Amino acid sequence: MSRDKFVIGIDYGTESGRVVVVRVRNGEEVGSAIIPYADGVIDEKLPGGPRLEPDWALENPRDYLAVVEKGLPKALKAAGTRADSVVGIGTDFTASSPLPTMRDGTPLCFLPAFRKQPHAWVKLWKHHAAQAEADRINEIGRARNEEFIRTYGGRYSSEWFFSKLLEIVYEAPAIYEAAERFIEAADWIVWQLTGEEKRNACTAGYKAMWVKGKGFPSPDFFRALHPAMENVIGTKVPETYYPLGARAGGLTPAWAKKTSLREGTPVSIGNVDAHVAVPACTVVEPGSLVMIMGTSICHMLLGRKKQMVDGMCGTVEDGIVPGFWGYEAGQSAVGDIFAWFFEHGVPDYIHREARGRKLPFETVLEERAKALRPGQSGLVALDWWNGNRSILVDVELTGLLLGMTLATRAEEIYRALIEATAFGTRTIVEAFESRGVRVERLVACGGLPEKNQLLMQIYADVTGRDIRLADPLLTCSALGSAMHGAVAAGRAAGGYDSIFEAAEHMARVEKRAYRPRPENREVYNRSFAEYRTLHDYFGRGANDVMKRLKALQRKQVSE
Amino acid sequence: MSRDKFVIGIDYGTESGRVVVVRVRNGEEVGSAIIPYADGVIDEKLPGGPRLEPDWALENPRDYLAVVEKGLPKALKAAGTRADSVVGIGTDFTASSPLPTMRDGTPLCFLPAFRKQPHAWVKLWKHHAAQAEADRINEIGRARNEEFIRTYGGRYSSEWFFSKLLEIVYEAPAIYEAAERFIEAADWIVWQLTGEEKRNACTAGYKAMWVKGKGFPSPDFFRALHPAMENVIGTKVPETYYPLGARAGGLTPAWAKKTSLREGTPVSIGNVDAHVAVPACTVVEPGSLVMIMGTSICHMLLGRKKQMVDGMCGTVEDGIVPGFWGYEAGQSAVGDIFAWFFEHGVPDYIHREARGRKLPFETVLEERAKALRPGQSGLVALDWWNGNRSILVDVELTGLLLGMTLATRAEEIYRALIEATAFGTRTIVEAFESRGVRVERLVACGGLPEKNQLLMQIYADVTGRDIRLADPLLTCSALGSAMHGAVAAGRAAGGYDSIFEAAEHMARVEKRAYRPRPENREVYNRSFAEYRTLHDYFGRGANDVMKRLKALQRKQVSE
Repeated sequence: MSRDKFVIGIDYGTESGRVVVVRVRNGEEVGSAIIPYADGVIDEKLPGGPRLEPDWALENPRDYLAVVEKGLPKALKAAGTRADSVVGIGTDFTASSPLPTMRDGTPLCFLPAFRKQPHAWVKLWKHHAAQAEADRINEIGRARNEEFIRTYGGRYSSEWFFSKLLEIVYEAPAIYEAAERFIEAADWIVWQLTGEEKRNACTAGYKAMWVKGKGFPSPDFFRALHPAMENVIGTKVPETYYPLGARAGGLTPAWAKKTSLREGTPVSIGNVDAHVAVPACTVVEPGSLVMIMGTSICHMLLGRKKQMVDGMCGTVEDGIVPGFWGYEAGQSAVGDIFAWFFEHGVPDYIHREARGRKLPFETVLEERAKALRPGQSGLVALDWWNGNRSILVDVELTGLLLGMTLATRAEEIYRALIEATAFGTRTIVEAFESRGVRVERLVACGGLPEKNQLLMQIYADVTGRDIRLADPLLTCSALGSAMHGAVAAGRAAGGYDSIFEAAEHMARVEKRAYRPRPENREVYNRSFAEYRTLHDYFGRGANDVMKRLKALQRKQVSE
Repeated sequence: MSRDKFVIGIDYGTESGRVVVVRVRNGEEVGSAIIPYADGVIDEKLPGGPRLEPDWALENPRDYLAVVEKGLPKALKAAGTRADSVVGIGTDFTASSPLPTMRDGTPLCFLPAFRKQPHAWVKLWKHHAAQAEADRINEIGRARNEEFIRTYGGRYSSEWFFSKLLEIVYEAPAIYEAAERFIEAADWIVWQLTGEEKRNACTAGYKAMWVKGKGFPSPDFFRALHPAMENVIGTKVPETYYPLGARAGGLTPAWAKKTSLREGTPVSIGNVDAHVAVPACTVVEPGSLVMIMGTSICHMLLGRKKQMVDGMCGTVEDGIVPGFWGYEAGQSAVGDIFAWFFEHGVPDYIHREARGRKLPFETVLEERAKALRPGQSGLVALDWWNGNRSILVDVELTGLLLGMTLATRAEEIYRALIEATAFGTRTIVEAFESRGVRVERLVACGGLPEKNQLLMQIYADVTGRDIRLADPLLTCSALGSAMHGAVAAGRAAGGYDSIFEAAEHMARVEKRAYRPRPENREVYNRSFAEYRTLHDYFGRGANDVMKRLKALQRKQVSE
């Protein structure tokens, strides 16, 4: 190559979009920009419109366009890179975050007739108002023994594509009628950039019941949901889905002008933020579990064949890396539990010490927790502050802390909470291995590993596996998108011919690994056995006290 | 009566002794004095002597004498009462707090030969170093099917008389040999004041295996404990015990001179602090459960016949009020749990609000907790931060908190802890009633009821029973001792002929009662059902996780 080529990765998060410019040769991030969404997460009232019910969470698709329009030039400028050295673009998105559009891709919420209708906007992944619809989907799915029930660990989520669509059918039939398309924002942005409505197999497989080679459930199933939905597939929702890394099309003239990139610059098929991070963590083969660790943890793993593993979020052929089955599992609260404890459980003596030593109180807590040995606190917790995603798939479960005495101190509780989340990860690892899906090592990315050495060591000790950290830790989704942009370009155009090639050249992990300490491992085996007994007792129906208390709570709050 | 007569009550607590002067006619406290023990609780090193092991807790009997010598004149002076209007003296003591003495009552620790020997001092009730001895007593008692095993709810405590004596036999045989008497401090102080070694049936019945009409276990039992103990009964420990309220003797000339009271002033037989409070709370008949509420709760109840109730601390004929069976139960941590939470669980936003409003943070917490409805927190706790006394009798049990979500707030946890202690009391109430021992209403005294309206209302709601507060709340033991002093004097000498008469004239409860609210009661029935399921699951062997975690903790701390 006469001079370096670059690719663009665009990572659409919950509050903002991140654009990175990455050198194709070595994966180096040479420039970036973050563009917060002007309307943010819309969860109180529509811009200029009515107030929303609780549990609603919408977004404005205009904000996604602004990320490209403002962020791409800004990132290029920061990189000092010539626009004509950019050979490809890849994107990833939160999911499932769908919206209704016209046949030409115009969002219904852009039309004056619909802009005051909440159902016309993007329903963000964390829009939680479609629980009744999800319940109905599961009820009918189970009665009909639909395959998606097994694929999704026994339960289709209220956060997903068809729950949100059914909500429109029930609550805003006029919008359902008017919508010529119902589409993931991940696919909508690619449609905008290329003019091609080509949808990605990853979001469809993990969130919309689509199965490679089989397609969707039958019209009978959709009619059972609602007669108006009988023919939804093939009309509002197309039947064709494209593999990750495929070229969706080239940048349109209009977008080329706005971004100063070359017209026709290859744009990759859309992707999901967690899934796209996997090859960016160097993982393109079975055996390495990728943990995207933040407020929650997503666990991504590749397998050589299809296995039904308890409590997966999804199991999709080619869903992460082509040629493999992609497994997704999750813990619904991890960093969120620590944030809860920092807010609601840290007593005055920790704050006093922190002020005295001019340190953040989190540092004091971490120091004190680190000085303890495994088992020394006498505590064990169940990490269900936000329900249990994998392997129990039950949002009605709640947290537990056991073993307190008059001598129990705050740092002991903090450490017990960290340990409980590690036990949650070990439970997932053991579920995989019990079905023959190997987990030989862990690779972590996200915000938690950066700040929490104690936590990472505990995860290594508890799981008995080496953990390496991805590099970069925080922007691995954006890097993953850039890698897919390089694949969309292909080697002939200065990119790579496969994600395997891209990973070899563009992805890295830190040399240093957290390694399990045998003496801690042995103690944690004992604590973990206690965790699992409690996990099964409270999580599998022997004592549904958590659900009964939640029901009582709802009754007492609503009366 | 030409002019009012007065009685003296002396209440020996853990850190100090309290002397009150009480008007016989109406129970009015006219003067008082508190004398802290100069040596306090001796738990680190003997005065001028060696360091102590952990778990030791001793006292200096000289400090008990100082309470009379300094406190009695001080209280009389505060009362403005003429010494010759005092017609009787009563005392009560923590128990079991025994000491070895010579035949004339001289404590071994007063003798130069023994004063550097820890075993020669008073072993305070909370001396916890005799667990191995208690284990041996229980093992042999169970093997021989001794009655005391049933009387004491299945377990003889390490805090009690013979555990502490056996500790001397094992660890300081020379002191055992030299001790001509082993005696409760409750009886020793009466011996000092009157010159008569007359021991009380209450301490013997609740702490030393003595049974009215039957006496002690046989010499065979004591020989099985240790050959040197075969004949301990009848030598170091006498066989005769006196009923509560009996006259032990008259004040000696020496003490009359020191206190300016009349020589021969009647002194009542000794008593236990919790037990003596019962008639001071007006309770001299079955049906009313007296709760002495502080760091822990003692529950005292009278019954018409002997019933073996699960997990009692003791069941003694005439043990509280003559003519009735006296039942004692207990919760080993109540106020202590709240104090733990105040220290270790109250987050910054509570402290900030308290500073802003210039209120104690406890008040802010109470206000917020009071604003919640029953069941609204979604939480339930097991109140075992210091083990469980009644009804499980198991010090190895630990605390539990269940139901936390990311929305759980500190005041919800606080309220759940209060509710858990109320559920603990309800468990005891139900144990009594399941054996036909009626509990129709509750009477409370001690420090907790004074400060905690919310707590008292929750106890009424949870137990479904009216609760009245004793008056005085804080000094009911001292009043009870004064009442027994009046009985020792007798009506002819200006006192009363029975504790029933004394209670009628001298004891009071507040008019206002906490009454259960039916709507709360119904909700708490549901929460209590959850508590009981968890109580039985963790407390009765289905899952001994608490014990295993404690064992692991001990191992990890000691290594």
